[in-house]
Amino acid sequence: MRLDADVALACRLADAAGAAIRPRFRTALDSMRKNDASPVTIADREAEEAMRMVLSAERPDDGIIGEEYGVERPSAHRQWVLDPIDGTAGFLAGRPIFGTLIALLVDGWPVVGIIDQPIAGERWVGAAGKETTMNGAPVRTRRCESLAAATLATTGPHYFDDHDGEHFLALAAQTDHRRMVMGGDCYNYAMLATGQLDIVAEAGLKLHDWAALVPVVEGAGGIMTDWNADPLHAGSDGHVIAVGDAARLEDVAEALACRH
Amino acid sequence: MRLDADVALACRLADAAGAAIRPRFRTALDSMRKNDASPVTIADREAEEAMRMVLSAERPDDGIIGEEYGVERPSAHRQWVLDPIDGTAGFLAGRPIFGTLIALLVDGWPVVGIIDQPIAGERWVGAAGKETTMNGAPVRTRRCESLAAATLATTGPHYFDDHDGEHFLALAAQTDHRRMVMGGDCYNYAMLATGQLDIVAEAGLKLHDWAALVPVVEGAGGIMTDWNADPLHAGSDGHVIAVGDAARLEDVAEALACRH
Repeated sequence: MRLDADVALACRLADAAGAAIRPRFRTALDSMRKNDASPVTIADREAEEAMRMVLSAERPDDGIIGEEYGVERPSAHRQWVLDPIDGTAGFLAGRPIFGTLIALLVDGWPVVGIIDQPIAGERWVGAAGKETTMNGAPVRTRRCESLAAATLATTGPHYFDDHDGEHFLALAAQTDHRRMVMGGDCYNYAMLATGQLDIVAEAGLKLHDWAALVPVVEGAGGIMTDWNADPLHAGSDGHVIAVGDAARLEDVAEALACRH
Repeated sequence: MRLDADVALACRLADAAGAAIRPRFRTALDSMRKNDASPVTIADREAEEAMRMVLSAERPDDGIIGEEYGVERPSAHRQWVLDPIDGTAGFLAGRPIFGTLIALLVDGWPVVGIIDQPIAGERWVGAAGKETTMNGAPVRTRRCESLAAATLATTGPHYFDDHDGEHFLALAAQTDHRRMVMGGDCYNYAMLATGQLDIVAEAGLKLHDWAALVPVVEGAGGIMTDWNADPLHAGSDGHVIAVGDAARLEDVAEALACRH
């Protein structure tokens, strides 16, 4: 099956990225700045180069959308979306909860997704119509009876603009505030897929930040949408909801819309 | 030397706590609520029981101040301060960056401190007048030329009251905002001691949240104080600063005081 071959290839890409990243973790890096002043490391570049080398050899006709090196073959029907280090600030802070994100889009829809944590040796693999696995074992989201019982995660309030921040706070106020966690980046979505968190809400994400998360979350029984509860597609606006219990999606979208 | 024996004992306490905690990580816990509604888990209680059992056998005359089971022998000259799981919300969220905190106070001053991460198998050990180690190897904080170049961490804005939150934002605005990380609890101090972060600032901490951090940070070359840049003692008010480069302490305290 083609999808199985794509999943196997995605795993090889994650292997290649991890090999580039591990030696750079917790070293004093000559980190460079991009124009937008977001932190970027040598590890980021070397990992994306390693993945692009594998793709050029094995899938010369597929497109690539990479966080570091941009777009190749933008009109291709199949697109690989690469984020070598999602959670660069966390990586620089020495936390083993950043991730390498690899997605395959077909006509703009994510059908394969990998979240790989190369320090802890944890890998979540999702693919359309398949059960999500973590290191080969199936994982499932958990039930969530109500927003009041829900644990919410987001990477940080400083990633929201003022408007989105207010909407996020309206959601946060309805959830179990004492268990809310900040930080985490892609790791929050992996933990939601593993049944440890109920809701993740973020804004300002780029395609490479969210594409790989969708097959992982949805293959574990959860659902991911934008803040209007519409499905995520390459053209989405970067406002993202993940819920472990699909029955809570409307509650979350309503709370974020500030419809009181 | 007595201090060496105390360090060795503290390591055995961490071993005992880790053995109690590991089987509970990423399981669906029957978590109970304390009166203040903070999350608390079976792991927390079992780990503190395990540590108290060791202390009763080996140091029957020392006092104990435990996060879960309160105070024993409050008038003792030597006090062991135990926080079996610092970062309970992070633990429940499945993140391997919570920590077991163990401190020895003499006359209210922390002289031994351990930050133990039992899932990743990482242990930071600090003791007055000694170099801090991580898994046996010395660690050092890094230099930091200015606030503008500093990476700041805090567990989350929802742990500040409005007043403290404003002061924190005044500090954050002067640091390298794009590298700021949220979440992390005690792990942020371990990473500061390891040269991965420059500043941690928090408020509302209890003695068991910060006592173990002081010997770890200071034995690595950093400094910890309250928000007035005064040394931390058992009677401190829970406003905590850690800086990796002691030359930045005054800048941080000034920024937090909002003296513009």
